[in-house]
Amino acid sequence: MSSGASAAAVNRRVLVARRPVGRPTAEDFALETVALPVLTAGEALIRILWLSIDGFMVGRLRAEENYTSGVAPGDVMQAMAVGEVIASNRSDRRVGDMVVGMMGMQQWFIDRDAVPLSPVDPARGPVQMALGLFGISGWSAYFGLLAVGRPVAGETVVVSAGTGAVGAIVGQIARLHGCRSVAIVGGAEKAALATDVYGYDAAVDRHDPALGARLAAAAPDGIHVYFDNVGGDLYDLVLEQMQPHGRIVVCGRLATAHLVDTALDIGPRDHGRLLVRRLVKTGFLVTDHAPRFAEATAQLMDWHARGQLRLSEDVLHGIENAPAALVRLLTGQNRGKQLVKLADRGDMG
Amino acid sequence: MSSGASAAAVNRRVLVARRPVGRPTAEDFALETVALPVLTAGEALIRILWLSIDGFMVGRLRAEENYTSGVAPGDVMQAMAVGEVIASNRSDRRVGDMVVGMMGMQQWFIDRDAVPLSPVDPARGPVQMALGLFGISGWSAYFGLLAVGRPVAGETVVVSAGTGAVGAIVGQIARLHGCRSVAIVGGAEKAALATDVYGYDAAVDRHDPALGARLAAAAPDGIHVYFDNVGGDLYDLVLEQMQPHGRIVVCGRLATAHLVDTALDIGPRDHGRLLVRRLVKTGFLVTDHAPRFAEATAQLMDWHARGQLRLSEDVLHGIENAPAALVRLLTGQNRGKQLVKLADRGDMG
Repeated sequence: MSSGASAAAVNRRVLVARRPVGRPTAEDFALETVALPVLTAGEALIRILWLSIDGFMVGRLRAEENYTSGVAPGDVMQAMAVGEVIASNRSDRRVGDMVVGMMGMQQWFIDRDAVPLSPVDPARGPVQMALGLFGISGWSAYFGLLAVGRPVAGETVVVSAGTGAVGAIVGQIARLHGCRSVAIVGGAEKAALATDVYGYDAAVDRHDPALGARLAAAAPDGIHVYFDNVGGDLYDLVLEQMQPHGRIVVCGRLATAHLVDTALDIGPRDHGRLLVRRLVKTGFLVTDHAPRFAEATAQLMDWHARGQLRLSEDVLHGIENAPAALVRLLTGQNRGKQLVKLADRGDMG
Repeated sequence: MSSGASAAAVNRRVLVARRPVGRPTAEDFALETVALPVLTAGEALIRILWLSIDGFMVGRLRAEENYTSGVAPGDVMQAMAVGEVIASNRSDRRVGDMVVGMMGMQQWFIDRDAVPLSPVDPARGPVQMALGLFGISGWSAYFGLLAVGRPVAGETVVVSAGTGAVGAIVGQIARLHGCRSVAIVGGAEKAALATDVYGYDAAVDRHDPALGARLAAAAPDGIHVYFDNVGGDLYDLVLEQMQPHGRIVVCGRLATAHLVDTALDIGPRDHGRLLVRRLVKTGFLVTDHAPRFAEATAQLMDWHARGQLRLSEDVLHGIENAPAALVRLLTGQNRGKQLVKLADRGDMG
C-alpha cells in the first residue's frame, strides 16, 4: 500500500440533510467529517479531484419515482467524479491511475466494486473533461441528438438551456451535422455566449415577452428537432413551432427543478399537436447508451482536436462548496460545465 | 353514359351548418337537396352506398390546426365512403366499378380527380369492409400498432376505446403477435364484448372507480405498448403503469371530442415519466403509411380468411342519419365499426 493512504485519515463529505422542498438549497445538505477506514483486501483508495454537477442530481434528491436508487437524508449525495488512485489492494487499480464514476460528493472514495469506475487517460486532456465533453455531458448530447433526435442536414435543431453543458455540445454537434442550430437561453449574456462561443446560428432569450415571435424568426423553417433540457411552459411554446414529423428529445426538465412533485407541472396535454404533426417525443437517459460510450468519446475527441467542439468550465473550489455549485446550476448561474475542484493530481493531501 | 345518371337527378347531402361548440351534435349539420349536375367530359358519377363514421371527423369540424383542409360551415361534411360507378366519361371508371375514398356525406359524388379514389374488389367480401377491416380502421390498427407501437411477443398491449373499430383490430393483431392484450372500454357490456368477441386477455371499465388497480391486475407485467385512442385523464392513469422503454401510440383523442380548443385539455405534463422510463410517444396518422396500404390489406384479409380477425358493424340507414351516426360514435354508443348505409349495390335509385 502506498504511503498516501495514511495521509487521508479523514474524509469530508456532503450528506443529504433533508429532502428539498422546492428548489434544492445549500441548507438541504450538511458537511460531515469522518475517519477513513483502513483499506482491506480488494479495496482501493481514491482521492476525488473533480466533482461533476449535473441536472439529474435533482431527481436523485426526490422521493418521487426515479430511474435508479435515489438518495435519502443521511446518505452521501450522489455525484459523478474523477479521482486518482492513492492506494490499492486491487489488481485492477494502480497507484496514480485516474478513474471516473459515481463516487459521490466527498473527498475520498473506497473502490470496492459497489460502483463501476472507468479509467481516464490523462494523455487525452485535462482529466475533468471525463465529466464534461468526454463524459456524461458529451455522451448525453451525442446520443440524445444523434440517436434520438436524428437530425438531417438542413433541418433546424432548437436546444433549451442551450449554453448548459449538454446543450452547448448539442448545438455544436447539430452544426457539425449541417443543421441550423438555435439556442434558447436565459438572458442576453448567455445569448451572446451561444452564438459567439458555441457557434449557434441564433439564440433567443426565454424571458423575452415576444419569445414566440423571436423563436419563429430564429427558426424560419420551423423546428425539426427540439432537444429539451427544460420542459415546463417553454415546451408548450416550442411545440407550436414543431414541423410535421419533428422529434422531441426529453433530456431534462430544469423548469421543474423547483417542484417537489412533477405532477404539479400542469399544462396543455400535447396529444393533439403530436397527432396532427406526427411528432415523436422520447424520454432519454444517457445510461441506456453505455455500450457505445467509447464510440462517442472517440468522435467527441476528434471534433475537439480539430477545434470544432468546445465546452467552457465553471469551477468552484472545495468540498464545502459542492451544494452551492448545485444551486448555481439549478438557478442558471453557471457558464459552461459546472465543476467543483477538490484537489490537484498527485496532491498527497 | 349509362341510363343510371338520369335517375340521379337530386343529391341529398349533409352540410356543416355551424362549427360545433363542445361535442358535435346533429344540430351542427343540415341536410340539403341539390340537383345533380350533368356529367361533363372527364367525370364519373358515383352512387355512395356506405359512409364511414370515424373519429378523425371531429378534427375536420374544428377551426383549430388540422393536418389537412378542414370543413367550414356550408361545406359538405367530409367522410370516407364506398360507392358504385353509375355513369362514366372517364377511361379509368367503368359502370359497376366499386370505389372507396373521401367522397363526403352525400348520396352522390362526381369523380373529377379532386379526390383520390381507390378500386374496391367485391370478390373479397362485403364492399363496406373497404371502410373497416380492409380500410382506414384496419390500416390504422395495423400501422399504428406494428410500425409505431412495435410490440414484441410476450409484451402487454393496452388499447383505449378497445372495442372501437380501430381498437378492436389492434387488440386482435396484438394477440396474433403473441402479446397480452388489454382493452379499456366504457362499461361492462363493452368489456364483455372485448373479451368474448375480440379475444382480449382482459378488459377494464374506464368508469370503474378502482380503474388503476383493475388495470394493474389486468396488466401485471406493466404496459409495454399503449395504443391511445382517447387521451385525456385516462392517459395520465395509464402512463403510471408504462414499462421502461414503452411505446405510446397517439392515434386518437376521443376524450377531447367535446373540447373546442385542445389547449383546454389540461393535465400533468408527461416529461418526467417519459424521461425516467424512456418512453416514446408518437403521434400517428394512417395516411403517412399509404404506400403500404396494399401490404396491410393483404395481411388483414389473410387473417380474416383464417378466422383470426373480425370486426362487427353498427349500421344506421339513410343520409339523414349520418350526423346521428357521428354523435353515436362520439358518445360511445356504437358497437363495432360505425357505418351509414345509403343504397344497395346495383340500386338504380
